[in-house]
Amino acid sequence: MTTEAKFYHAGCPVCVAAEQQLAAALDPDRYRVEVVHLGEQKARLPEAEQAGVRSVPALVFNGQVFHINHGADLSELK
Amino acid sequence: MTTEAKFYHAGCPVCVAAEQQLAAALDPDRYRVEVVHLGEQKARLPEAEQAGVRSVPALVFNGQVFHINHGADLSELK
Repeated sequence: MTTEAKFYHAGCPVCVAAEQQLAAALDPDRYRVEVVHLGEQKARLPEAEQAGVRSVPALVFNGQVFHINHGADLSELK
Repeated sequence: MTTEAKFYHAGCPVCVAAEQQLAAALDPDRYRVEVVHLGEQKARLPEAEQAGVRSVPALVFNGQVFHINHGADLSELK
């Protein structure tokens, strides 16, 4: 069974590094990672906020938020 | 071929969550994760600093540092 993970980002360099390295390093047998660009998909900002995302890049799974380094605050994307 | 990854932490709740969830989610076929408790292994603080770690928990691999949420600044562990 695979766990759904969401990787929220905004296309910033810090985000791209985290996506290409960390999100891509997850075990594909256990995790399926959906990549969400919050700069382009503003309709998904409330969903990210509700999950507890305060800045991007962030990885969310199993109800936990992992803020990875710091690219931009969520408030800057609104 | 497996990539060596280092997970630096200090035993804090934020660190434990990141270790049990995020470090454990890496693909074991591609990454071997060494867990380093900097509170107990202070001799390894310089190595972490040199890698660019500023706070724990942090995951380091392929020359990149990913600070995951924020448990403690490295300076607090000295």
